[in-house]
Amino acid sequence: MDKPLKILHESLNNRVIVGLRSGLEYHGILDGYDVPHLNLVLKKAEETLNKEPRRKLETVILRGDNIIYISP
Amino acid sequence: MDKPLKILHESLNNRVIVGLRSGLEYHGILDGYDVPHLNLVLKKAEETLNKEPRRKLETVILRGDNIIYISP
Amino acid sequence: MDKPLKILHESLNNRVIVGLRSGLEYHGILDGYDVPHLNLVLKKAEETLNKEPRRKLETVILRGDNIIYISP
Amino acid sequence: MDKPLKILHESLNNRVIVGLRSGLEYHGILDGYDVPHLNLVLKKAEETLNKEPRRKLETVILRGDNIIYISP
Amino acid sequence: MDKPLKILHESLNNRVIVGLRSGLEYHGILDGYDVPHLNLVLKKAEETLNKEPRRKLETVILRGDNIIYISP
Amino acid sequence: MDKPLKILHESLNNRVIVGLRSGLEYHGILDGYDVPHLNLVLKKAEETLNKEPRRKLETVILRGDNIIYISP
Amino acid sequence: MDKPLKILHESLNNRVIVGLRSGLEYHGILDGYDVPHLNLVLKKAEETLNKEPRRKLETVILRGDNIIYISP
Repeated sequence: MDKPLKILHESLNNRVIVGLRSGLEYHGILDGYDVPHLNLVLKKAEETLNKEPRRKLETVILRGDNIIYISP
Repeated sequence: MDKPLKILHESLNNRVIVGLRSGLEYHGILDGYDVPHLNLVLKKAEETLNKEPRRKLETVILRGDNIIYISP
Repeated sequence: MDKPLKILHESLNNRVIVGLRSGLEYHGILDGYDVPHLNLVLKKAEETLNKEPRRKLETVILRGDNIIYISP
Repeated sequence: MDKPLKILHESLNNRVIVGLRSGLEYHGILDGYDVPHLNLVLKKAEETLNKEPRRKLETVILRGDNIIYISP
Repeated sequence: MDKPLKILHESLNNRVIVGLRSGLEYHGILDGYDVPHLNLVLKKAEETLNKEPRRKLETVILRGDNIIYISP
Repeated sequence: MDKPLKILHESLNNRVIVGLRSGLEYHGILDGYDVPHLNLVLKKAEETLNKEPRRKLETVILRGDNIIYISP
Repeated sequence: MDKPLKILHESLNNRVIVGLRSGLEYHGILDGYDVPHLNLVLKKAEETLNKEPRRKLETVILRGDNIIYISP
């Protein structure tokens, strides 16, 4: 398995930081993903915009297209 | 079934929040979607732009391309 | 048939609102579309830019790429 | 034939308005197009940028990618 | 042959104006192109940015992706 | 093997600079990549935005789509 | 071989100027490329942003996606 997917797989059920193109960032627990789109599901996510807290989301699906980084 | 699609499927007929690239956000009832584009149909949707209410739409089709997050 | 296409099909010959990425919006009668691009044809369309009326167009083809929402 | 292509085909040798993502607009005679890219050729075209006239072009090829609307 | 490619082919060794998304424009002699990307090669090209001259380039390859118009 | 991939392969376990479209830049140790997307994994990464330090990340996955340059 | 690739091939081991969408420009020696992505490798590259020098890079991989022009 390729390294990026391996890292993603190992991050399941752990906290990750996900950054989107628009400056939105999500901190939450990685609940799942799909291949090859890399759409993600986060649980207990906190959404920030340019570092400002915006809201909490119990569950959120993030489209892979807009993701620029994922950090376990 | 992949987790993102599973979450989407479970959200059918329930309220969801959908965010688009342009800062538009829709709160409404998920009435359907297609695969793999993830075009969505919302019913009884409220449209906001950067958190400002804009209007209510009985039905709206949202093109998957522009969606950045979906939260049940 | 997937729900988004079903809604689009049912909207044929009825008034729809179509929003584009650029802030352009068209109100007109849905005269046709193609699959999978979702290019649309509207008749008797009124074009607005950020809610300001711009002009009326007897017929207009809208490229699916730029469409973000369609509301019957 | 799909409706959008049918309208385009009927517009051959007639005047059309073509709008691009960048705010450029062309008024000219539709001389040809290709499928599926929808690259267009206009003759005797007048180019405007945000409604300001820029220049006249005897012939111009417009890449389909950047086109957002075509009005016969 | 489709009309857009036919016009491009007839323009070989002649002067063309090529506009890019970024507001860059090139005036030069069309030395070649490829299909389907429509990457172009211009010779003796003059580069302008928003109509301001920037420099002369003996040869330049322009990626088709960024091209919005080509005028012979 | 193509030269770009060869250079990337030779950079494994070495420090690289990776620039993204958004002005974000990462300095870290290249831990892996996939083909053809060129998603990267960096270890011990320092993130900067327009040259201003932002934070340190033990591990980060960078989506290939948004990468504009990689320098060993 | 198509003309754009032919020009690129002839430029191997010679100085080229490469412009990216973001206004970044690289002057360096073309060390390699791949097809069809046109990812490039430059050696002894100087990076400028809107004509201002930024830094020198011994080796840099440039993703083809973001390239708008290449001039030998």
